[in-house]
Amino acid sequence: MDVPVDEARLRADLEANAEFGQVEFDDPEKRGRTNLTGTKANERARDYLVERMEDAGLDVRIDAVGNVAGEWCPPSADPDAAPVATGSHVDSVPEGGIFDGPLGTYGALEAVRAMQEAGVEPDHPVLVVNFTEEEGQSFADGLLGSSVAVGERTVEEALALENDEGETLEAALERIGYRGTGALDAAGWDAFYEIHVEQDTALESAGAAAGVVTTITGITHCEVTIEGEANHAGATAMGDRTDALAAASEFVLDVEAAANDVVAESSESAVGTVGSLDVSPNATNVVPGAVEMGVDVRDVEYESMETIVEAARDSLGLLEAGRGVDTSFERPFDLRPTPMSDRLREAAHRAGDDARVETMDLHSGAAHDTMHVASVTDAALLFAPSQDGISHNPREWTDWADCAATTRVLAGALADVATET
Amino acid sequence: MDVPVDEARLRADLEANAEFGQVEFDDPEKRGRTNLTGTKANERARDYLVERMEDAGLDVRIDAVGNVAGEWCPPSADPDAAPVATGSHVDSVPEGGIFDGPLGTYGALEAVRAMQEAGVEPDHPVLVVNFTEEEGQSFADGLLGSSVAVGERTVEEALALENDEGETLEAALERIGYRGTGALDAAGWDAFYEIHVEQDTALESAGAAAGVVTTITGITHCEVTIEGEANHAGATAMGDRTDALAAASEFVLDVEAAANDVVAESSESAVGTVGSLDVSPNATNVVPGAVEMGVDVRDVEYESMETIVEAARDSLGLLEAGRGVDTSFERPFDLRPTPMSDRLREAAHRAGDDARVETMDLHSGAAHDTMHVASVTDAALLFAPSQDGISHNPREWTDWADCAATTRVLAGALADVATET
Repeated sequence: MDVPVDEARLRADLEANAEFGQVEFDDPEKRGRTNLTGTKANERARDYLVERMEDAGLDVRIDAVGNVAGEWCPPSADPDAAPVATGSHVDSVPEGGIFDGPLGTYGALEAVRAMQEAGVEPDHPVLVVNFTEEEGQSFADGLLGSSVAVGERTVEEALALENDEGETLEAALERIGYRGTGALDAAGWDAFYEIHVEQDTALESAGAAAGVVTTITGITHCEVTIEGEANHAGATAMGDRTDALAAASEFVLDVEAAANDVVAESSESAVGTVGSLDVSPNATNVVPGAVEMGVDVRDVEYESMETIVEAARDSLGLLEAGRGVDTSFERPFDLRPTPMSDRLREAAHRAGDDARVETMDLHSGAAHDTMHVASVTDAALLFAPSQDGISHNPREWTDWADCAATTRVLAGALADVATET
Repeated sequence: MDVPVDEARLRADLEANAEFGQVEFDDPEKRGRTNLTGTKANERARDYLVERMEDAGLDVRIDAVGNVAGEWCPPSADPDAAPVATGSHVDSVPEGGIFDGPLGTYGALEAVRAMQEAGVEPDHPVLVVNFTEEEGQSFADGLLGSSVAVGERTVEEALALENDEGETLEAALERIGYRGTGALDAAGWDAFYEIHVEQDTALESAGAAAGVVTTITGITHCEVTIEGEANHAGATAMGDRTDALAAASEFVLDVEAAANDVVAESSESAVGTVGSLDVSPNATNVVPGAVEMGVDVRDVEYESMETIVEAARDSLGLLEAGRGVDTSFERPFDLRPTPMSDRLREAAHRAGDDARVETMDLHSGAAHDTMHVASVTDAALLFAPSQDGISHNPREWTDWADCAATTRVLAGALADVATET
């Protein structure tokens, strides 16, 4: 089914949303915003969204953790049928881009408006959703609103979370008027679609306007420490050192090499990153005594992740034997890969074909609320191209035509899925 | 000449000094103190020193930057002859050891007392010196008092230096009663000796009680930056990355390898250290965008230092070509090696032979006030053994017998040098 969308209307919403928490830059290539849960910017962004939902005739509800859901239940739909849901988030990282999140929320709203205008008569209600704090900047590590919607976290647990100022989520939501009642229940949805910017360059390289995610990669985070012996950089001969940073440097390169090997041999999508590294005492004239590192490993294949993690452990063993350092290794976070629903993916490809929008399969290396929703119902993730793959950055950019094309794919897929054939 | 010293008296002074700024530890192996310029601990340490100098009949003067000098000018000495000077410092690093500095100051005082008791009749006055802030913890980068005594810094420049609280050195010294007048003039000294703990294990390994430093190594500090591209650790494929930390890791290992090569091939004393490394943005889930590093290179041969610095530059060139990073390299600090006076070294070895204290030649990889003094007159540095080479640490230790043996060598050498033959 093809459901044409209004690019100008979508753009107007995204530009309006970009003003909430807007950060000014001299460089015209930068458009950034800081929209953190519970701030004035966040309140205004939510108010605008609710207003636009109501303009479209949606029945808007706020749940206990501030998730916003606007229901379109036309006469054709059975109010008791499982809703087909779609949406994303409007919060951002500090100085984040204007598309990461809002494109999924306003793309969802635009898809509903487009269905209304195209005379689509769905059998299921359609729900436009905006989840609280996807970016994890204030109250949690990320995916906060969807964690409650899938039952991974209780409402009470969520409301008790505190930001750095010691304010609870409950107090912050009450302050901005978004402490509602009840909890969104994603398990009761028939399906969920999210549009997000790709944050990489696969679509740009292929010249495709819309991506259909096959799998959201699994994620492992490891915490590694290496202890050597801090000593005077002048008075300690090379042969007498146990330099924790030299050892850590071997580790960083071993993790990189292990990921590159997996990419070359079995799974192109595998990545391994040492993203953080802290040296102590960290003075130019002192041989480093200890290093702490944070390692991030992801892939669509859990086995590939295990291969990289094993290589990291082996590296530490060799460093203990070869350099006399002490090491520790912990794996506080480990999430298996999440495959997307074949039914919803196929509907998306069909909608692309009908609309003559080129779609392509790809994986997601980033976590999204869809990952949570997929644990309780059929879910799918659509990607719009990101210029140069830049994200979490004021240089993040997706062309307006690409925003509209991906939204058109969403609208067609929603119309398809929400209508019993 | 052999001039026996009083180990108990020297120990009593060092133990008394250890109480000023004493840090308590549960571990009986730790004895630490924090003695920073201008603190109450520093004032008390200075007061005790002045009292002990006066007990020994020295004529004590405080100069404008707080350097303390106590002159012994017996009837045998020509008051106009160039003094033979000796001393060190009583300030410490935070939680430093009890010997680093004080052994040189109280060893000097004990050597004078020993000469008095042995009936030595010097032709030159003998000066016991305590320099202000050798450790560079509050007002400067180190060697503050001696920098003024050799004319490298003016009194005005020194007094205007500020600590982190914004207090000037002048105000701090006035507050504790150590803003004196005039400036010590090391260029007018006939000779200068300093005792210091070795801070490495050459003496311990050789079983020698006293070291005679041949050369204080040169020191180069380099500031290196590597810029890659910060990006999402999940969404950025291995092949699309410019990881600044992976590049920096190669650099760290290249510097280590270059120093090891020089040690193996030409100069055993060469060292190269990447002591500090800061990653940004430094988050587990972000590919590192930039790294800043501090590099320390030292040797007794300037040519060896140049070899290591060149290898570091070459490494950066290879990383730019191979990994596509941008790099910068600065060398804000470069000091050539400082050879010690042959005349004073020979006198020290003779004193060791006469006292049956085994002396050995070795180099110093650490900078000391002697390095400054050597730029204007004959200077020498004697080392006492450091247990396990540990320094700047409450575990720093030198046996009392070794303290006394090195002081005995100093006393004999001073008696020799201060007496015209």
